[in-house]
Amino acid sequence: MRVVVAPDSFKGSLSAADVCAAAEAGVRRAVPAAEVVAVPMADGGEGTLDCFLAARGGEEVEVAAADPLGRPVKARYALSGDGRSAVVELAAASGLPLVEDVPADPLGASTAGTGELIADAVRRGARDVLVCIGGSASTDGGAGLLGALGVRFLDAAGNDLPPGGAALARLARIDDSGLPAEVRATRFRVACDVTNPLVGPSGAAAVFGPQKGASPDQVRELDAALTVFADVLAARGGVRVHDLPGAGAAGGTCGGLVGVLGAEPAAGAALVAEAVGLPAALAGADLVITGEGRVDGQSAGGKVVSAVAALAKERGVPAVALAGGVVPPFGELHELGLTAAFSIADGPRTLDELKAGAAPLLAALAEQVTRLHAR
Amino acid sequence: MRVVVAPDSFKGSLSAADVCAAAEAGVRRAVPAAEVVAVPMADGGEGTLDCFLAARGGEEVEVAAADPLGRPVKARYALSGDGRSAVVELAAASGLPLVEDVPADPLGASTAGTGELIADAVRRGARDVLVCIGGSASTDGGAGLLGALGVRFLDAAGNDLPPGGAALARLARIDDSGLPAEVRATRFRVACDVTNPLVGPSGAAAVFGPQKGASPDQVRELDAALTVFADVLAARGGVRVHDLPGAGAAGGTCGGLVGVLGAEPAAGAALVAEAVGLPAALAGADLVITGEGRVDGQSAGGKVVSAVAALAKERGVPAVALAGGVVPPFGELHELGLTAAFSIADGPRTLDELKAGAAPLLAALAEQVTRLHAR
Repeated sequence: MRVVVAPDSFKGSLSAADVCAAAEAGVRRAVPAAEVVAVPMADGGEGTLDCFLAARGGEEVEVAAADPLGRPVKARYALSGDGRSAVVELAAASGLPLVEDVPADPLGASTAGTGELIADAVRRGARDVLVCIGGSASTDGGAGLLGALGVRFLDAAGNDLPPGGAALARLARIDDSGLPAEVRATRFRVACDVTNPLVGPSGAAAVFGPQKGASPDQVRELDAALTVFADVLAARGGVRVHDLPGAGAAGGTCGGLVGVLGAEPAAGAALVAEAVGLPAALAGADLVITGEGRVDGQSAGGKVVSAVAALAKERGVPAVALAGGVVPPFGELHELGLTAAFSIADGPRTLDELKAGAAPLLAALAEQVTRLHAR
Repeated sequence: MRVVVAPDSFKGSLSAADVCAAAEAGVRRAVPAAEVVAVPMADGGEGTLDCFLAARGGEEVEVAAADPLGRPVKARYALSGDGRSAVVELAAASGLPLVEDVPADPLGASTAGTGELIADAVRRGARDVLVCIGGSASTDGGAGLLGALGVRFLDAAGNDLPPGGAALARLARIDDSGLPAEVRATRFRVACDVTNPLVGPSGAAAVFGPQKGASPDQVRELDAALTVFADVLAARGGVRVHDLPGAGAAGGTCGGLVGVLGAEPAAGAALVAEAVGLPAALAGADLVITGEGRVDGQSAGGKVVSAVAALAKERGVPAVALAGGVVPPFGELHELGLTAAFSIADGPRTLDELKAGAAPLLAALAEQVTRLHAR
């Protein structure tokens, strides 16, 4: 019996690796001879670097970069053991928490630091870069990131624009002639956790601007600037990113990466699954156990459980989710490929009790699930 | 796919029939074409009459009988549709709650009323009587019950003893010549929920006497009287019931029924399973779903879940228990035949929330279990 354990973390309680260890213990109690393959998962957010390094070897690389306001910051990204792949989290150099010590600057904040991390990874040989976005301080359409890679954003007079989203209102031309050949040869994938378009009432400025400190006037200013950016991209013959689902993620960074670098946006969990080799691990499996803190039938898309279920279904492997809490009905998740979902709760329990006892409860549940499956 | 649903009630929340209905709904959501056979179960306590009548047809028969102190009381027992079988609960005519309106009389309280119910059932044609004992007000070794059927308890002078356990201290002879032929032809089975012997430090008087109002002196008096009773039974060449496990149930009623009538004591749930036809229902089943309010691996014996699991194992049918709360490890239950156990809890919940939402939670869990099993 071959069992693959591929869970997300239980936020606030167990890391994905902890979940794997507990589930594996339960599986072995049920079927001592079982072959258990642990593939800790993440959805492009917290824990993604750890999962990637656990699966691919390698190391975290620390780089001196610019924070959203141009101040020096040390930030880390993950480089695989073979040096060919990297995972860069936008929050590492360009996250909102980095600038919470000073007044917000929604118009001027930049993603340049993330571009420095990517440039370093490419310099070291990475040709497959997964950019996990979300939690940014900026609304610059990824212009800062692209600038750090060698792309120039010019006004009508041919001058480089200053950092920040507001300056894009004066954008006349994008010059990517300075983009190094190795960056052009790199495959970029963007893990998006939202489906907002770049501009408009559900765009990057309108929806996420206020939490970055933008006033209603500044939201309008940034939305207009991002519209100019998207217009210039479209005029170059590129993708029209104005309404592209997900383009609004991280202050429009996704839109910029798609429009300028041809990056592929996708749900974070699906991209992480590929990066950690889950499809290969599932070959020949009899059962896959996934899970996360809470499995909600209404939010089927984009999460680890749905990504794992979809991959399992393609391969005819039953997929069971173990969770702190489950919220049926699971019609959509069952459709996607999830066979069943169970809560680790063993009776009346407070949230704190479930968190504190999560590991043994998970092991006990995994044992019962494996016993039933093995019948 | 044939699924048998054979649960106990969830005490304080759902009757066994309610549990069946909820589980059946869940099974059908998973496999609409499933054949679902509902066999509500009980362990010889509360709900046993309902289960028996649901399975065997028939009616509750009301009889004018004597309560533990000899006062008139109306009490009911169940007679099967074919009139050949009956279930008599000792608590109906001889229960402690019937005499809580007056000062306790542990020395004089009697089981005579239960004997009147049994006599009525035999008169109507029942030749297979399941006596469910527990909760008695008396410590009379079942002498009152046997007396109502025609057995005489005599002192050395040949006089009938008065009611109650204390009088057995003067017992010299048991005369069963007045026992009607139809009573002799009847098979009696006793559903015991305890394993206490008749006498001694863990016997009927010592363990259960105090809760019936017996003082330490009265406990000693009753224990000595029951010892005389057991000695007389043994001297007749019958079973030695002094140390027989379960003989101490219901103030020694089990011991008296075994010693005088050759009744067969057994765990209540196993006897009820037979009475409701569970063994036949399990033939050809693909899955049996059982359950109760709380499944505890440490108390495997005598309960509905263990009885159902054992029957399922004999027939090679996987058995899954659904419960309000589960308390692993289940080593002993798994040994007995239980494949797996799951709690209906869907996350952090109070006991009241679990009770109030038990039916939909149970249906949701049964759906997931059936989906996993059907894979």
